[in-house]
Amino acid sequence: MAVLRDNSYGKERVRLTKIVRDESGGSTPPVHHVYEYTVEIMLHGAFDRVYTDADNSACVPTDTMKNTVYAVARTSTFSSPEQFADALSGRFIDRFEQVEGVDIELEAQRWRRIEVDGAQHPHAFEKQHGTRTAVISRRGADAASSQSALSGGIRGMEVFKSTGSGFTGFYHDEYTTLPETEDRILATTVDAEWDYGAGVDMAGTDFDSVWETIHHTVARVFAKHDSPSLQATLWEMGTAVIGEVPVVDSISFSMPNQHHIRFDLSAFGLDNPNEVFYGTDSPFGIITGTVDREEET
Amino acid sequence: MAVLRDNSYGKERVRLTKIVRDESGGSTPPVHHVYEYTVEIMLHGAFDRVYTDADNSACVPTDTMKNTVYAVARTSTFSSPEQFADALSGRFIDRFEQVEGVDIELEAQRWRRIEVDGAQHPHAFEKQHGTRTAVISRRGADAASSQSALSGGIRGMEVFKSTGSGFTGFYHDEYTTLPETEDRILATTVDAEWDYGAGVDMAGTDFDSVWETIHHTVARVFAKHDSPSLQATLWEMGTAVIGEVPVVDSISFSMPNQHHIRFDLSAFGLDNPNEVFYGTDSPFGIITGTVDREEET
Amino acid sequence: MAVLRDNSYGKERVRLTKIVRDESGGSTPPVHHVYEYTVEIMLHGAFDRVYTDADNSACVPTDTMKNTVYAVARTSTFSSPEQFADALSGRFIDRFEQVEGVDIELEAQRWRRIEVDGAQHPHAFEKQHGTRTAVISRRGADAASSQSALSGGIRGMEVFKSTGSGFTGFYHDEYTTLPETEDRILATTVDAEWDYGAGVDMAGTDFDSVWETIHHTVARVFAKHDSPSLQATLWEMGTAVIGEVPVVDSISFSMPNQHHIRFDLSAFGLDNPNEVFYGTDSPFGIITGTVDREEET
Amino acid sequence: MAVLRDNSYGKERVRLTKIVRDESGGSTPPVHHVYEYTVEIMLHGAFDRVYTDADNSACVPTDTMKNTVYAVARTSTFSSPEQFADALSGRFIDRFEQVEGVDIELEAQRWRRIEVDGAQHPHAFEKQHGTRTAVISRRGADAASSQSALSGGIRGMEVFKSTGSGFTGFYHDEYTTLPETEDRILATTVDAEWDYGAGVDMAGTDFDSVWETIHHTVARVFAKHDSPSLQATLWEMGTAVIGEVPVVDSISFSMPNQHHIRFDLSAFGLDNPNEVFYGTDSPFGIITGTVDREEET
Repeated sequence: MAVLRDNSYGKERVRLTKIVRDESGGSTPPVHHVYEYTVEIMLHGAFDRVYTDADNSACVPTDTMKNTVYAVARTSTFSSPEQFADALSGRFIDRFEQVEGVDIELEAQRWRRIEVDGAQHPHAFEKQHGTRTAVISRRGADAASSQSALSGGIRGMEVFKSTGSGFTGFYHDEYTTLPETEDRILATTVDAEWDYGAGVDMAGTDFDSVWETIHHTVARVFAKHDSPSLQATLWEMGTAVIGEVPVVDSISFSMPNQHHIRFDLSAFGLDNPNEVFYGTDSPFGIITGTVDREEET
Repeated sequence: MAVLRDNSYGKERVRLTKIVRDESGGSTPPVHHVYEYTVEIMLHGAFDRVYTDADNSACVPTDTMKNTVYAVARTSTFSSPEQFADALSGRFIDRFEQVEGVDIELEAQRWRRIEVDGAQHPHAFEKQHGTRTAVISRRGADAASSQSALSGGIRGMEVFKSTGSGFTGFYHDEYTTLPETEDRILATTVDAEWDYGAGVDMAGTDFDSVWETIHHTVARVFAKHDSPSLQATLWEMGTAVIGEVPVVDSISFSMPNQHHIRFDLSAFGLDNPNEVFYGTDSPFGIITGTVDREEET
Repeated sequence: MAVLRDNSYGKERVRLTKIVRDESGGSTPPVHHVYEYTVEIMLHGAFDRVYTDADNSACVPTDTMKNTVYAVARTSTFSSPEQFADALSGRFIDRFEQVEGVDIELEAQRWRRIEVDGAQHPHAFEKQHGTRTAVISRRGADAASSQSALSGGIRGMEVFKSTGSGFTGFYHDEYTTLPETEDRILATTVDAEWDYGAGVDMAGTDFDSVWETIHHTVARVFAKHDSPSLQATLWEMGTAVIGEVPVVDSISFSMPNQHHIRFDLSAFGLDNPNEVFYGTDSPFGIITGTVDREEET
Repeated sequence: MAVLRDNSYGKERVRLTKIVRDESGGSTPPVHHVYEYTVEIMLHGAFDRVYTDADNSACVPTDTMKNTVYAVARTSTFSSPEQFADALSGRFIDRFEQVEGVDIELEAQRWRRIEVDGAQHPHAFEKQHGTRTAVISRRGADAASSQSALSGGIRGMEVFKSTGSGFTGFYHDEYTTLPETEDRILATTVDAEWDYGAGVDMAGTDFDSVWETIHHTVARVFAKHDSPSLQATLWEMGTAVIGEVPVVDSISFSMPNQHHIRFDLSAFGLDNPNEVFYGTDSPFGIITGTVDREEET
C-alpha cells in the first residue's frame, strides 16, 4: 500500500578545525593557518532496505561519516573549503559501493590575523563577520568517473547604505499603500552562491582569491550603484561578478530587504529630514535571482 | 555576456493574528478562536525587467503582499492554515497578470485553551510545543484554472524514548568505531510534511482532524515500534500515516538523531547501568525519506 | 596599579539525562522516569592566584565540574531539579576547601508521556512547551553549615488572551501617542522564579506538585483577571501564588508585553472589528516585579 | 498577606538608526555617519500603585519610552553610544517626577565604510563582527543632581590562537580526568564592560578612541600572552587596559572557554600531531573577573 520514494541521510554540524604550520620560511615561530569548517554530509544510494526491511547491512553509520571528516582532513592537503569538499566527497563515492551520490556543504569561519606591533601575528586570529561556504554535489560509482557540481559562497554579508537608493514606478493595486521614494536606506544581508564550471582546476585555482574578488565586487557594486530596486542591484552584482571572474559560470543571490522606516516625529513638533529611522525585524522583503554567463553561439 | 535565469521575490515573517468570535451558541461570553500564522510569500512571473532594466512597472511591492495578507484574512473565512494558504494564493494568481506562480508557506502557532475550574476558557490560551505548517505552490493564469500542490505539516515535535531502540548490523569500514548496541536512547525532532491529493475538498476537509490524527499516529509509532534504526522508524511512521489518513498521498520526514551517550563513570569507580547520559549538540545525524501511497494498477 | 576585585568561573551547558527505572510495581515493562537538565555551575572562593600569579594549584578544572555533574547524578537520588541542585551544590562546598560559594542553575526539559491506546507509555515521551528551572546559591565552608538560597522557576510559558485586557488612564507627556484602549490582546511569555524558605524540607517537599500548582495558578489568573495592565496582572499572579503555596516565600516575574496591533484596513474600504492583528517582534515592553509574603508582626 | 518588593518596567529592542550628514568639508557628496543602536530602557520609581491598585496614573507607557528614543535622537547631538545613553537617561530623570532611576543599555552595530577604488565610501557600509555596548544607571530627582554610573563595552569579540596556551598544575580530585597540556588551542568570545570614573567628561572624551584602544589592547594581549589559563589571560587583559586607558576605572570580562579537542585518529592508523581538532558546542567553561584601578593611598 505504501512505497519509499526518496531517501537520504547523513550528518550535520561536524565541526572541524585544522591547523597547518608553515615552516617553509624557516621562520621562528612558524606561521599557522587555521581552517574551521562546519560540515554537512548527505548520502544517496542503495539504502532502501535500511528503511523498509530493518536491514542495516548497507548502512554507513553517521558516526563513520563524522570520523571520515577528521581522517580525510588529516590525510589530504587543502587550503580552501572547495578543495576539502572535493576530497571528502571523493572518499564517500570511492569507498562505498552502495553510495551513488553525496552532497556536502561546508561553512567556513573567517579568521583574520591579529595585528600586533604592526605585524600579522603568526598564530592568533580574530573572527570576521559573515562566513564562506562551499557546496559539492557528486554523483557516480567512483570519484574518477563521477560528475560533480561545485559551488562557493558568501553567507551573512551585511551591507547598508544611507542614500543612493529609491523605489518608484511600481505596480499599484487596491491594497497598495507604499509611498514612492527617491531616497531611502537600503540594507541587506547578502547570501550568494556561485557555480564553478565543469572543468575547474581543483589544484590550480586560487579559491581564496576568487572569494575575495567576489566579496569586493559585491561590496563595490552595492556602494556605487544608484539603486532603483534591490532586484536591479542584484542584477548589477551578478553581471559584475560574471564579467570579472572567468571561473564562475553562474551566481545566485538571496537578499532580504531589511526595511528602515523614517520615524514620524511630527506629533512632537519635530521635523525629520531623513535622519532618524527605526529598523524592523518583521516582515522583510526577500529578493532572489540567478545570473548566468551567456553561452556563446 | 550575462543573462537572468531564475528569479523570485516576496515577503517573509508576515505575522498575522486573526480572532474569530463564535456567537452561535448565544453563550456569554462568546467563544474566541485564535489563528496565529507567520506567512512567507514568493512570487514568480514576468519580473525580468525589474532586475535587468530598472523597470518597476510590473513589480508588486512586497509591502503590498503584506497588506494582502491582512486584507484576505479579513475578507475570507478559514479555520485552518491550509484553507488560508489556498485563499491567499488564489488572490495573487487572480489579481496580477504578471504573476504566473506563487509559493506560500504558513507556520501556525498551537494555542490550547487554558483550563479554569474544570472548563476550557473561552478566550485565554497557552502555547503548545512545536508548530503546524501549510505550504501551497500554485501555478497558472487565474485561480480557477491554476494547478496547485498543497501540503500540511508538523514542525518541531520533540520525542524521546529511553529504551526500545538499538542499532546493529551496520556496514563497517576502516573508519568505523561506533559500537553496536541493542539498547539506546532514541531522541529526535520530527519535521513532517504531507501532500494532499489533487482533488482535495478545501471546504469539506477537516484539516484540524487530519493534523491531530497524523500527530497521534507519529507519536504512537514512535512509542510502540521497537526501533532498529531511525530510518526504519521513519518508514513505520510513514506507512502508518498512509494507512490511516486517506486524504494524504505522500508524507516526507526530516528527523535529526539527537545522540545521548552513556557517560563513562568507570574512572570514578562507578558503574553506569544505562542510567546517566550526556546529550550532544553537535554533530547530529539527519534522516530523511518520503513514503508514497502506492498507486493502484 | 591594578587589583582583582571579583572573580568566578565555572561550566555552562552541561547536558545531563538520567533514566530511573521504577520496578517497584513488578510491572512489565518497568516504568521509566526521565530527567533532562542543562546545568550551569559557578564557583567562588580562593582563586585569586589563578588569575594574578599563573598559579593553578587551587583551580578546579571546569572539566572536573562537568564530571562531577554525572557522578553526583549517579550517586544521589532525586526526583526534581531542586533536589539535584541541592545535592550537587553540597558536593562542591564539601569537597573543595578553596570553594567558598557555588551558584548552580538547572534548566529542565518537560517530558510528558505519550498516550498510546488510552494509556501512558512507560518509556516514550513528547516534549512540552517551556522549561522548568531550579537555582541554588550556597555559601559556606561545608554543606552542613552552609547557607543556601533555593529557587524554583517557570521559563518560557507563552500565554495569550484575545479580550479581557485594556490599558487606560496612564501618564501623558509630550511624546505620548499611544491611544487608550478598553479591549486589547494581551500576550506574554512568563518567566517566574520563586524562593523557598530557609527551612524547606528537601526530602519531604513535593517539588513537582509545587511547580504544577504555580503553573496552574499563573495560567488561571492570566485567564480570569480582567487586566488593566500587565503590571496589575503580575501582582495578581504573585498574590495568588503566595496565597496558595505556603512553601513559597517570594516570587519574581519578568514578562514581555508582546504587542499585537490592530491592522488598519480602512485604506482598502474594509473595517476591522478587532479581528485582524499583526504581531510585532520589536520593540516590546518588559514588566518585572517581586511579590513577597508579608512577614507577621 | 503579600507585599510588592521590587518592581521595574521598560522597553526592549527599540531599534534606532540615525544618519548624520557631514557637510562641513563642502565635499560632494557629503560624508554620512551611521549610528545603529538597539536600546533597552528600565524605569524605577513610584510605580507601586500600577501593580497593586490598578492605578495607571503614574505609568509612563513603554510606547512613550520608544517615542522618546527617537525624539531624543533627533534633538540631541552625539557620536557615541555613551553620549546617547547619557542624553536619553537625563530625559527620563528630568521629565518624570515619578521616575527615580533609569537603566539604559545600548548595543551598537559596527559599520565600517566600504572601500571603493582605494577610497572610503561616503555612505555605504559593511558590518563588522561583534558589537559595542554602553550602559548607564542613573538615580536621582533630576539630571543635574543625579548620580550615574556609565560603562562602555565589547560584545562578541571572537578570538582564537593555535598555540601559546597550556593548562597544567591544577587541582586534582577523584573526579578529575583532564590531562595536563602544555600546548592547546585557546578560543573565546570576549565580552567586556568597563566603568568610566564619576567625573568623566561627556563632551570631551573621545569614546570611539577609547573603544578602539581597548579592543586593540585585548587583541594584542590575547595574541602575545603565553597563557597558563584563561583566568590569567583575563588578568593580563585587565591590567593592560587599566594601564593604557586612564579614563577607565575598572573592567569586567566574561569569557567562555570554547574547547577544541584533538581528534584521536589512532584507531585508523593515523597520527595527529596537534593538527586536526573538533570544536564542541557544549559544555563550555566560563571565566569571569573584574580588574580595578588600585586607589592611591
